[in-house]
Amino acid sequence: MGEEISNKQVILSNYVKSSVKESDMSLRTSKIQLKIPRGCDGAVLVKNLYLSCDPYIIQSMKKRNGYIASFMLDSPISGFGVSKVLDSTHTNFKTGELVWGFTGWEEYSLIKDTNILFKVHDKDLPLSYYTGILGMPGMTAYVGFFEFCSPKKGDIMYVSAASGAVGQLVGQFAKTAGCYVVGSAGSKEKSVVALMKVDLLKNKLGFDEAFNYKEEQDYDAVLKRYFPDGIDIYFDNVGGKMLEAVLNNMRLHGRVAVCGMISQYCLEQLEGVHNLLYLFTKRIRMEGYTVSDHYHLYPKFLEMVVPLIKEEKITYVEDIAEGIESAPGALVGLYSGRNVGKQVVVVARE
Amino acid sequence: MGEEISNKQVILSNYVKSSVKESDMSLRTSKIQLKIPRGCDGAVLVKNLYLSCDPYIIQSMKKRNGYIASFMLDSPISGFGVSKVLDSTHTNFKTGELVWGFTGWEEYSLIKDTNILFKVHDKDLPLSYYTGILGMPGMTAYVGFFEFCSPKKGDIMYVSAASGAVGQLVGQFAKTAGCYVVGSAGSKEKSVVALMKVDLLKNKLGFDEAFNYKEEQDYDAVLKRYFPDGIDIYFDNVGGKMLEAVLNNMRLHGRVAVCGMISQYCLEQLEGVHNLLYLFTKRIRMEGYTVSDHYHLYPKFLEMVVPLIKEEKITYVEDIAEGIESAPGALVGLYSGRNVGKQVVVVARE
Repeated sequence: MGEEISNKQVILSNYVKSSVKESDMSLRTSKIQLKIPRGCDGAVLVKNLYLSCDPYIIQSMKKRNGYIASFMLDSPISGFGVSKVLDSTHTNFKTGELVWGFTGWEEYSLIKDTNILFKVHDKDLPLSYYTGILGMPGMTAYVGFFEFCSPKKGDIMYVSAASGAVGQLVGQFAKTAGCYVVGSAGSKEKSVVALMKVDLLKNKLGFDEAFNYKEEQDYDAVLKRYFPDGIDIYFDNVGGKMLEAVLNNMRLHGRVAVCGMISQYCLEQLEGVHNLLYLFTKRIRMEGYTVSDHYHLYPKFLEMVVPLIKEEKITYVEDIAEGIESAPGALVGLYSGRNVGKQVVVVARE
Repeated sequence: MGEEISNKQVILSNYVKSSVKESDMSLRTSKIQLKIPRGCDGAVLVKNLYLSCDPYIIQSMKKRNGYIASFMLDSPISGFGVSKVLDSTHTNFKTGELVWGFTGWEEYSLIKDTNILFKVHDKDLPLSYYTGILGMPGMTAYVGFFEFCSPKKGDIMYVSAASGAVGQLVGQFAKTAGCYVVGSAGSKEKSVVALMKVDLLKNKLGFDEAFNYKEEQDYDAVLKRYFPDGIDIYFDNVGGKMLEAVLNNMRLHGRVAVCGMISQYCLEQLEGVHNLLYLFTKRIRMEGYTVSDHYHLYPKFLEMVVPLIKEEKITYVEDIAEGIESAPGALVGLYSGRNVGKQVVVVARE
């Protein structure tokens, strides 16, 4: 019998309809034994250290969203995190090891499905990076850019939600590939956060240009200003009206990698895209992907990205919230663009 | 000096806003000399035999359509046709030869831009086929299916506007590739034309199933009926609401080849597609193309398709209107689905 210990959890209290509020979640303290129950093979019991706030999560907080599986009500939210193995009946994971992957929004989790669970290989780098640049968002950026954008030197690229967990990396990958890259980020008009994001993109992350889309009434006009010659590659994190404006400004044979559509996740009525005729008149390829199909590339990705981080050729910006109690607020902030960089929640540092 | 002769022409009388009426065009008789003017090198003067009514034409009848170049007012409409060379200053084309490609809607045309002009190679086959199966629509079907659909044996495929110039071939190519193919066609509910089209698809063109979409209120429901296991490949000729319903019913890793969007060409306000979130949740590739990028494949295409026609392994249905005077009506009929098969206009038989 293992020690029974209290376990703070972030619970989904009710399904959300459109936007998510902190009150849709609640904190509960339950108990957990720090030992895997008898007969439960292939599982790990972990202490969660860092939790990852990712835009897709709100979709699972809806009852029938039509797109991905919904969370169970009155159960802990699940998502990506970095954890320490306290007990294991899985041959690949040993007690004391650090892992990243799919876990619960709670202090301790019993993980029975270890399909999306990977070892932390390099402890010289910040552990929190395994929720971002070295984890799911990093892989998402890598796969999206190199497998779906068909980049060529000199291509003109636009990245939306560019200061987020995925966007900031896509932009930096694109610069290494010789593209001209413009990013947009959003936060309240003229707010300090908005200024910080645009500054980050231009001065820290090496984007050629950046703008705050929330200051713009007319997306088509702002794109014409930043892309007078049109766009070859659009890395789409937002969808909706911005996607429509981008299609207006795409060049012949353009590529749209559809990674996510955060602008749509909080709407009851999704926005329609009215100008898909451009797909054939401009010969555009628009392709959606999900990182989970591509984890076999993770070792290859690490081989590329770890040296880049160590040589400071690539940088990564995180927005760290302290304590599991801060998780609901951190998640909600994601949908109004309150975060600057990858939103992480620290549950414990070791 | 060549003989001066009268030349009946179909003129664009006024730009159309949404749908096209016969009265938007008019017939005019002008004069033409059957000799290429001095100094006009690289040109051909042709007698037009067959004209091709193609869905895209209405787009060029709009003043600023945003998608393709507009026709000149009070000038003959241009499009694809089959013609006989009466005079030539072009090294590739000789007097007496038969050609197909871009010409005018008139009895005789002086073609200065011969970029899209090809020789008729096989005179054993009906000459009108060079407006269809052996011409631009045939190449469109070939390129769209083999280059953009990534077909695999057993794939479940849906073709809209399936009895049209392109759709009927796509369906037959898909059957040769071992796909399960369902086609939709449209004409007035319970009309004889609608019955004929559905019958054609199932009993002459070898589609596994077919339906008249104009009898259906709920596109999503009809697709669920014909595709209980979902759709792997959608060959899109119509766009709009049908495309939205298809995305609801696509399977993981589905492909949408966007060839055209006839349902949108006659609308003042284009329909929005609201469920593009499926692009990433279902990992869908949606790609538009234009046949003009792919004419280098024409010889390879002929090598495949000519034997199939001669061995009667592939069939082609045409709807032939007699006389250039019938051209405006034939074109207008295309947008209400009045034609059964490829709509051709005979100007002269030789």
